[in-house]
Amino acid sequence: MVKESRVDVLIIGAGPSGLMCANALAGAGVDFRIIDNRPIGVPAGQADGIQPRTIEVLQSYGLAEPLLKDGAQMHLCVRTSASRSFHILSSNIDTCAGILQPRTQWRHRTYWPGCRRNGSNSPLSIQGMFCYLASSYLLNVFLQITIAQSTIEALFIDSLKSQGVAVDRPIVPSSLEISEDAEELLNPSSYPVKVVLDHMLPSDTAPEQEIVHAKFVVGADGAHSWVRKTLGFSMDGEQSDYIWGVIDFIPDTDFPDIRNRCAIHSSNGSCMIIPREGDKVRFYLQMSDKDVMDPVTGRIDKAKVTAERLIDVARKTFYPYTVNEPKEVDWCSIYIIGQRVASKFSAKDRVFIAGDACHTHSPKAGQGMNASMNDTHNLGWKLAQVLRGRADISLLKTYELERQKYAQDLIDFDREFSALFSGKPRTSDNEEGVSHEQFLTAFQASGGFSSGIGVHYMPSAIVDTTHQACAPSIIIGQRMLPQIFVRVADARPVEIHDMLPSDTRFKLLVFVGLLTSEQLGKVGRLAEELQLPTSFLQKYDHPAEGKAQSMFDIIPIAAGNKDDVNYLDIPPPFRTHWSKVLIDDTDVTGRLGGGAYERFGIDPKEVTMVVVRPDGYVGMIAPSTAVESIDKYFGSFLIVRQEKP
Amino acid sequence: MVKESRVDVLIIGAGPSGLMCANALAGAGVDFRIIDNRPIGVPAGQADGIQPRTIEVLQSYGLAEPLLKDGAQMHLCVRTSASRSFHILSSNIDTCAGILQPRTQWRHRTYWPGCRRNGSNSPLSIQGMFCYLASSYLLNVFLQITIAQSTIEALFIDSLKSQGVAVDRPIVPSSLEISEDAEELLNPSSYPVKVVLDHMLPSDTAPEQEIVHAKFVVGADGAHSWVRKTLGFSMDGEQSDYIWGVIDFIPDTDFPDIRNRCAIHSSNGSCMIIPREGDKVRFYLQMSDKDVMDPVTGRIDKAKVTAERLIDVARKTFYPYTVNEPKEVDWCSIYIIGQRVASKFSAKDRVFIAGDACHTHSPKAGQGMNASMNDTHNLGWKLAQVLRGRADISLLKTYELERQKYAQDLIDFDREFSALFSGKPRTSDNEEGVSHEQFLTAFQASGGFSSGIGVHYMPSAIVDTTHQACAPSIIIGQRMLPQIFVRVADARPVEIHDMLPSDTRFKLLVFVGLLTSEQLGKVGRLAEELQLPTSFLQKYDHPAEGKAQSMFDIIPIAAGNKDDVNYLDIPPPFRTHWSKVLIDDTDVTGRLGGGAYERFGIDPKEVTMVVVRPDGYVGMIAPSTAVESIDKYFGSFLIVRQEKP
Repeated sequence: MVKESRVDVLIIGAGPSGLMCANALAGAGVDFRIIDNRPIGVPAGQADGIQPRTIEVLQSYGLAEPLLKDGAQMHLCVRTSASRSFHILSSNIDTCAGILQPRTQWRHRTYWPGCRRNGSNSPLSIQGMFCYLASSYLLNVFLQITIAQSTIEALFIDSLKSQGVAVDRPIVPSSLEISEDAEELLNPSSYPVKVVLDHMLPSDTAPEQEIVHAKFVVGADGAHSWVRKTLGFSMDGEQSDYIWGVIDFIPDTDFPDIRNRCAIHSSNGSCMIIPREGDKVRFYLQMSDKDVMDPVTGRIDKAKVTAERLIDVARKTFYPYTVNEPKEVDWCSIYIIGQRVASKFSAKDRVFIAGDACHTHSPKAGQGMNASMNDTHNLGWKLAQVLRGRADISLLKTYELERQKYAQDLIDFDREFSALFSGKPRTSDNEEGVSHEQFLTAFQASGGFSSGIGVHYMPSAIVDTTHQACAPSIIIGQRMLPQIFVRVADARPVEIHDMLPSDTRFKLLVFVGLLTSEQLGKVGRLAEELQLPTSFLQKYDHPAEGKAQSMFDIIPIAAGNKDDVNYLDIPPPFRTHWSKVLIDDTDVTGRLGGGAYERFGIDPKEVTMVVVRPDGYVGMIAPSTAVESIDKYFGSFLIVRQEKP
Repeated sequence: MVKESRVDVLIIGAGPSGLMCANALAGAGVDFRIIDNRPIGVPAGQADGIQPRTIEVLQSYGLAEPLLKDGAQMHLCVRTSASRSFHILSSNIDTCAGILQPRTQWRHRTYWPGCRRNGSNSPLSIQGMFCYLASSYLLNVFLQITIAQSTIEALFIDSLKSQGVAVDRPIVPSSLEISEDAEELLNPSSYPVKVVLDHMLPSDTAPEQEIVHAKFVVGADGAHSWVRKTLGFSMDGEQSDYIWGVIDFIPDTDFPDIRNRCAIHSSNGSCMIIPREGDKVRFYLQMSDKDVMDPVTGRIDKAKVTAERLIDVARKTFYPYTVNEPKEVDWCSIYIIGQRVASKFSAKDRVFIAGDACHTHSPKAGQGMNASMNDTHNLGWKLAQVLRGRADISLLKTYELERQKYAQDLIDFDREFSALFSGKPRTSDNEEGVSHEQFLTAFQASGGFSSGIGVHYMPSAIVDTTHQACAPSIIIGQRMLPQIFVRVADARPVEIHDMLPSDTRFKLLVFVGLLTSEQLGKVGRLAEELQLPTSFLQKYDHPAEGKAQSMFDIIPIAAGNKDDVNYLDIPPPFRTHWSKVLIDDTDVTGRLGGGAYERFGIDPKEVTMVVVRPDGYVGMIAPSTAVESIDKYFGSFLIVRQEKP
């Protein structure tokens, strides 16, 4: 008797991508299971860089706090060159004139804040001071936070545990079939995917089989993805020749920038230093063939790659600074950079692959874990709405559309960046080498990728750019810009991202403008229009199913002076709670907030609606005169509520 | 057979004061017990205001986060008067010219940030954005946070639980005796206090007796303190005639300032609105005799004070705004304001009283719970050091010295403030009434008390003002000023308060100045001098007992440009960890930090040492040429380490 079971979503793989998926589905109340073939999670090493955008996303699930508390924050990027012939091009150079630097001629440091400022003219937003924790302000400041992958996984696993869910492990899938029945595939209530699982039992016992019938399957099973191979998707791209070693340890060195993200590019080799939580650092070290190859087979000889060997390589690169034998080594490994993207991300919109299963790239730009978690952040709310019967199954097509293009762009960038990093520096002896200027330009231009805020989804069923002109600086298809507003009722400054949780709801930001009596009339009429049974706000919502499963959250944002506005004057349909009425003004200290209408290019004499998707990306914008275009937008993927007889 | 036991410290009473004491002692590794006569803690109501200084203190124990997250933050104080004859004196008045306020003539609002800015010229410090959480920056912004006393108690109880400690309850003490033997009293290892405890058992069973022999006892058993009465201490002060009702509920009203701290002072009565966590608010309502008195006995008739009655009173005060019948009432009560201070806070420096046991005052200035927790914050580290044999038992005399004066000052302020608040407003009919100007002046002048940052301990064994001139703006006897510095090693901005945890250690801030070669020589010679066996840093420290029990923590702070300083140039005795080397410069964004030397009045060409006590108060300051005066300071209350033979 083989056990058989049914589940709405089966997630295969409990790395960051699978766990993010599980967490999103658990929050949405979806029936799912998550399995993994390893008996326990990753103990040490692996990915470690968390981008600003990923922090925003984690915060939108209420999960960013431990990372901000325990992770290493990177405030400085330092580029150090061992060649004296470099010209230093930045205007912010440490002149090294101080008496504190006996080796100044060797040491060039170029300072810039970790992250490129975001495209808007916004000042650094400083929400953290008031709001206890906001994530969005971070992206103007940090390049990234680093923390062990195991800590990230633990974060998700603890969150799942608090929701009564655990990873089933060790379980190995052994077959996967998708129904060919077109009608079955179009019916979101059907279970067209059949997966056979082997429950691994202690030592010599034969595994116990189980047949799972799933509505959907997510394959988040890593670079060697069994799901991908089973579906027959190819990985397109190339393997490079660059070989890198990586080591996590507590350093003992006189190198003064050991606690900064630092690229050392010397003729003896290259090294990237990544400060880690606590006293740890990570080195990425360029290895030569003789260091790692088996001369007979021509393949990497993993036995040759020991911590001692890696520290020896570091020692040469760091010379004349010293690197002493470390007392404690956490983890070390070696890899050859490969940049590849899967040919497809979805089979019949019933089985999806995500994370390393569909894209692999070099770890140095800190992309891997971030792209992986963002894949399933994109997929989670779509699965939830389809499973609830609120959205058409065609919504799922936007997953591949949005994430495959992003993966390809990322890999193109990564290929260029890795080549620069792995190349020898340009010197008088080597005029073909990589110049400091080339490196700097590439590094700085990479801000959109290294911060994660550059993600820009193209027009689709869920990205409608028709009325972009109503708010030219809120780019439709990008994530909503961070901005501090003031709550009218209690004058507390709030970061708008903190009002955009990943709760499967669409957020309707209603910029109600400067509340003259004329404008109040306009706002009132819009509120009435949106109360009509034909309006999207009524047709697609499901009030009987409670707030957690409602489809929309409305946030009115006034212009003007907070002292002149009474929150009770906002029409009740736009004022669902006293804490949701905001104003674009400074807080009581005059230091936070204000200027958003101007910055976004929104006319305070009009009423402008901004639709933010459940994943935080701007889906569409419309003036109050174009309610029908919002109706059309939602009509293209949402299903009209059927009143129960 | 009566059970007998021994304990270093017995804490009687598990309200905020007793729990703060327990938490401080648990953190210090002290052997103690905490008992309470109630079977469970406070369920609702009671004190609710948390001052900025209290947030700093809680944060120094790592406990402030939940409050910042869940508490209501007060950004606006609004003073509303129902009389049209008031002159509005502030220059920041809401002119009420907007079309949104049909009742503008009735409504006067005066805006000012919740809290008086602290005395220094410091800009708002905005550490929160980087440091995940810092408390000190808050005090320039919030008047206070409000949250239920039960939440505060739960915070401490959870923290104690994680350290393996629970409150023993219900236990009622029945006798207390202190030895009269002078020699025994002077020996910190003796157990001169004998307390008999009755363990209360279910229903009809007679209580079980226990005799506890304690080195020290802390009576934190509330306004009707059994410990205080047993010691025979009197409560000096007076009972006022003002009767107030208090009610916690979720309001339903059209009053627009319901979410702000708001004083309504109308001829129909006075009301203070305190926004609370979630949707709750608290009203303090002035009651008339007929509302609450039993006409026969002339005493308060508690049966008359119902939620309905209190809402009726509110309704009159709020007119013409409406207050509808609330759906949910959390708690209500009534009290007569009394301002009293105990005649003594300590018996033979072996039994101490703290919190409401030694001072009672009106709740409206939000002082009670704060003063109570700060009493035992002051006492905790002193008990720990005496019990460890590190400090002379005479150190404990500074508890009464410091806290009794503070309690008296507080009560003098409270008396004045309450009278103003309870008085009728001045109108043309009542020229003797309280003018708006009087009220405003008193309210604003109260910043030192209402923020808690005004606490100023007078010179004593642990407050030495000799070298105040070395840093004129760091007031010796007050808490260390908040200030953002930058960590040299990784350019991360840090708030100095986050480096001053309440861990029983003295913090030595060494302002090493601008690191020219001459200055480096000076710093090096000071480091050498402090390494001599005769130096306080050696004589009083106990390195063999591990870092947690060490006596000093050293934080060097350089002046100048972060790009010119290598943290490795600070002499090793001053550089105990890479994260402790700071510089008075701005962070990479140029927005945080810098200017501290100038603000504090410290000469960057000298070396200046600031001694911060374990409770965060500045104990002394000295130039590098006066190491002997620091030796003398510590010599007056610390005990020289005896090398074990």
